[in-house]
Amino acid sequence: MENISSAKSVYPVNLFEIRLMTTNTNPARGMRDFLPDAVRKRNYVIGIIREVYEKYGFEPLETPSIENLSTLTNKYGEEGDQLMFKILKRGQKLEKQLKREDAKENDLTDLALRYDLTVPLARVIANYRHELPRFFKRYQIQPVWRADRPAKGRYREFYQCDVDAIGSKSMLVEAELISAVSEILERLGFKDFAIRINHREILIGLLKAFNFTTEKYADVLTSLDKLDKIGVDGVRDELQEREVDQQASKDIIKYFDIMVGPEKLPRMPGSHRAEPNVRKIHNGMQLTHASLKSNDQLTRGISELEKIVELLGYEKDSPPTEIDLRLARGLSYYTGAIFEIVLTKGDFAGSIGGGGRYDGLIGMFGKEEVPAVGFSLGLERILYVMEERGMFPDNLRTNLVDVLVTVWNEESAGESLKLANELRQNGLRVFVYPQADKLGKQFKYADQINVEYVCVLGDNELAENTVSLKNMKTGEQETIAREEVSEKIKITR
Amino acid sequence: MENISSAKSVYPVNLFEIRLMTTNTNPARGMRDFLPDAVRKRNYVIGIIREVYEKYGFEPLETPSIENLSTLTNKYGEEGDQLMFKILKRGQKLEKQLKREDAKENDLTDLALRYDLTVPLARVIANYRHELPRFFKRYQIQPVWRADRPAKGRYREFYQCDVDAIGSKSMLVEAELISAVSEILERLGFKDFAIRINHREILIGLLKAFNFTTEKYADVLTSLDKLDKIGVDGVRDELQEREVDQQASKDIIKYFDIMVGPEKLPRMPGSHRAEPNVRKIHNGMQLTHASLKSNDQLTRGISELEKIVELLGYEKDSPPTEIDLRLARGLSYYTGAIFEIVLTKGDFAGSIGGGGRYDGLIGMFGKEEVPAVGFSLGLERILYVMEERGMFPDNLRTNLVDVLVTVWNEESAGESLKLANELRQNGLRVFVYPQADKLGKQFKYADQINVEYVCVLGDNELAENTVSLKNMKTGEQETIAREEVSEKIKITR
Repeated sequence: MENISSAKSVYPVNLFEIRLMTTNTNPARGMRDFLPDAVRKRNYVIGIIREVYEKYGFEPLETPSIENLSTLTNKYGEEGDQLMFKILKRGQKLEKQLKREDAKENDLTDLALRYDLTVPLARVIANYRHELPRFFKRYQIQPVWRADRPAKGRYREFYQCDVDAIGSKSMLVEAELISAVSEILERLGFKDFAIRINHREILIGLLKAFNFTTEKYADVLTSLDKLDKIGVDGVRDELQEREVDQQASKDIIKYFDIMVGPEKLPRMPGSHRAEPNVRKIHNGMQLTHASLKSNDQLTRGISELEKIVELLGYEKDSPPTEIDLRLARGLSYYTGAIFEIVLTKGDFAGSIGGGGRYDGLIGMFGKEEVPAVGFSLGLERILYVMEERGMFPDNLRTNLVDVLVTVWNEESAGESLKLANELRQNGLRVFVYPQADKLGKQFKYADQINVEYVCVLGDNELAENTVSLKNMKTGEQETIAREEVSEKIKITR
Repeated sequence: MENISSAKSVYPVNLFEIRLMTTNTNPARGMRDFLPDAVRKRNYVIGIIREVYEKYGFEPLETPSIENLSTLTNKYGEEGDQLMFKILKRGQKLEKQLKREDAKENDLTDLALRYDLTVPLARVIANYRHELPRFFKRYQIQPVWRADRPAKGRYREFYQCDVDAIGSKSMLVEAELISAVSEILERLGFKDFAIRINHREILIGLLKAFNFTTEKYADVLTSLDKLDKIGVDGVRDELQEREVDQQASKDIIKYFDIMVGPEKLPRMPGSHRAEPNVRKIHNGMQLTHASLKSNDQLTRGISELEKIVELLGYEKDSPPTEIDLRLARGLSYYTGAIFEIVLTKGDFAGSIGGGGRYDGLIGMFGKEEVPAVGFSLGLERILYVMEERGMFPDNLRTNLVDVLVTVWNEESAGESLKLANELRQNGLRVFVYPQADKLGKQFKYADQINVEYVCVLGDNELAENTVSLKNMKTGEQETIAREEVSEKIKITR
């Protein structure tokens, strides 16, 4: 049996009973319906993302929505395991568990919905490594699911737009990815975005220099990341709560606040300004300080950042990149450069994406480590800001249909279809009014769906091989030869 | 917290442990990974479907993957309820159920994955009826999930491409939908498709005339639908097994086999042949037979089919439509015309989609009945046949990237990025080799990824502001002025 034929006879006959049973017509909690206008906006943004990534040689990948539970568990920490949507076992396997008295959560489920696009990518690379090119540049734009508490701007089904370059350790990859992401945001019309970069080895080097113990690294960086928001006192209180060594905390807060505070951040928004900025990193960091002087990790991190900055300097319009030594970003799996894309102005300032190098993660399903760098764009946030700022082009809605063809009466309905057919063959998008209503009603409908032209094909027009064409914007109406209609509409489009 | 930042710190630090735990890298049972070539083929077909539907004025709709369980249960019959992927409750709600000793399946789940696109459409129309236009023409191309036993060509996640016109009872809608679907199949390159049409009221009229009891209607039609495959004897045996009245069975088998057997099916593949064909329906059905003469349903069904056939006759290239009085198609919810799209030739003959009028179903979530006609195309089946028949255009793969830019050495890597940047600004799709390998290796890679041009930017070229351009197909290599590269590549594209 084909999938297609299994659609047969699936609905029970008695529709009335169904109606009585079903009253809630809202989408499920945290889920959204996308009516046509919303789909067009989503497709517009996704279209630009695809186009730019393909211009950079990235190829599309799609993975299934459902993964084996064992593929996903223990990959996202305890919180992730809790927020995962898990799928109930079926048939006999479920019955067996239901009969047990002590069945636990994991006895009842064998599958789960995709939680992000990175773990599936790692699985795909391990599974098809002999079919994939040595340098696999892939983008993936698909929904993921998380059973988070829904809130403004936070949904339980949302799209991630990931781009990853697998297989090279060269900083060329970082530079090219920053360019690609930057081009996407420019094409979408963002003027106030910045790509903040930092390096994991710089952070680890600093933590080592300030004598923190390894197990406190994540705590310290998570807190320092908030220096802007909660201030020196806030960070100190948080670190105390997390039982981090007090002297080390005091020292690093001072260092971050005074030496690399936001006003002293080296910035390089223009092009060909790479070199002076790199020098500024050194100065700003006061590497003359004894404990920082001969720190291998620090040196390596700085030299990689320098290389990225240098490469970006070759671009005609260098992406708006900023070094931000406090940027932490999910330190757990990043191994090199880390990025955060932010909007800098107005009510919508904040993160719209991020990424970094993670040379260890991809190998988790395979036998060997595979170097990788990636970016993830937050589609839902981008759409929200674009909506609020009015950044969508006007013609997403108005150019949907070029012309509405009216139906004069039941007898001539076929003639209306024939005209529509001719117009479509000339490349026009045509809406045929679907029944023989009064003409006024049909014009009113054309107005509602915002179509620019209406064709009337009455008895006279049919007899004379003409069409009455009304421009709904200007109100002008004229009777023209039938073969001229398409040209007329196209010219003014 | 934004979705985007919840990607932070979700991976545990110790990647080595993960690697030890995870060995199976296959997609879950019945699920598929789509590598880039497969995605391009899927997007090519989906692109044509979207383009044609939009040309006919249909608008895109998307609904969430997850629906409330109560929205989906009891809509697809017992089999559907079993094949649905249900989602485990979470947090305290789950804990409460796990503590019970007598928890049943439905106590453990509150959500399920979308099973088709029709029930979500009905929910959407009930929920947004004041925002949607009076005639809502929507298409929806999204995956659905069924826990069917996987088999060749049958998957547990597969796409449906639905198109539905809501709000009119006119046969114009049927005719236009048949045209749209037909245009899609032509654009995809199918030469041997036919759209078989029948009418539920004709079927019900015949069943009544042959004195079947109402509760046996579905059984009889399901069996008669197989007359071609299992023959007269097979149908008789099946009906006997299902305890259908023997005399009535004998009579109707005779009628279907002799009066409307396949060799006598009225066909109307050309245009403007509507009228004679309609007359053939009457003759073929032998309506002079007493029990068929004054049968209201039969008369209404025939008159509606006549109208559809007449309207299709106006098209310049009339869609290849065939009347097939044995077509049954999920009778449970269809109320008027029913369609099946079939391929007629070779190993891949069979159904690739279907549809019909269902004036009762959409209303199941609302207070009033809403007329509707729809088609569903089986994307997976279409892709499979196109692959087997070699119907995809060659340039889906080869036109992916226009040119590969090599990297001469680490020092000049920035210059390669700069050149790539220039070429992209001229509209080319450019792959920058991601590190400074030996040139031979880079050329070999260009060959593997099937790119037509390779740019070499060595010390000489840089000094002279030139580029060495190699055509990988012809082997020709020439050194040309840098500003001419894009033109050169575009001309031959």
